[in-house]
Amino acid sequence: MPRRRIHTACVPGSFTAEEAETAARMFKALGDPVRLRLFSAVASHEGGEACVCDISDVGVSQPTVSHHLKKLKEAGLLTSERRGTWVYYRVEPSALAAMGQLLSTATKAA
Amino acid sequence: MPRRRIHTACVPGSFTAEEAETAARMFKALGDPVRLRLFSAVASHEGGEACVCDISDVGVSQPTVSHHLKKLKEAGLLTSERRGTWVYYRVEPSALAAMGQLLSTATKAA
Repeated sequence: MPRRRIHTACVPGSFTAEEAETAARMFKALGDPVRLRLFSAVASHEGGEACVCDISDVGVSQPTVSHHLKKLKEAGLLTSERRGTWVYYRVEPSALAAMGQLLSTATKAA
Repeated sequence: MPRRRIHTACVPGSFTAEEAETAARMFKALGDPVRLRLFSAVASHEGGEACVCDISDVGVSQPTVSHHLKKLKEAGLLTSERRGTWVYYRVEPSALAAMGQLLSTATKAA
């Protein structure tokens, strides 16, 4: 049985190539259990922000925490602000919009 | 100024180590622009399912599409069913629950 022809616009889903690059970079950054838990820790911390001093007991050293927080920031998932001795990280809302767009489409489909 | 002591339960966010492993595997699978667009294509395709024949023009060869769809399945993001000549893929709802849990926490924080 021949397959019905589909519209080209539907084929790559709702992502442009550029949007896919940006979102993929974010997903890749979360593709590590430690980084995922750190992101979650920042997101769920009181006031929506946390510094290394707040999340130093995830099971890795403080320099490792700092390293991963920087990676999350580079991927566009977190923003940071230095206040006194500490750098405070918080979730970047536009990152959630990009990832949420995908999950929203997928939730409707599932 | 000394930092206020925080509750240990808050520290790693809302993920157990096992949940973090599972979700990180899913995020990692989506950490590639082509796979991300394929996942989105399956999710947004009519009826919530698609086969390789439906999504062969994302800009990569059909064997590459097949390869990536298998990777998405291995990560728990898609399920598959063979019907006649074609294997049909659809989004695995429990995958969305795991990823949605994180984004939901993060959305409240942002």
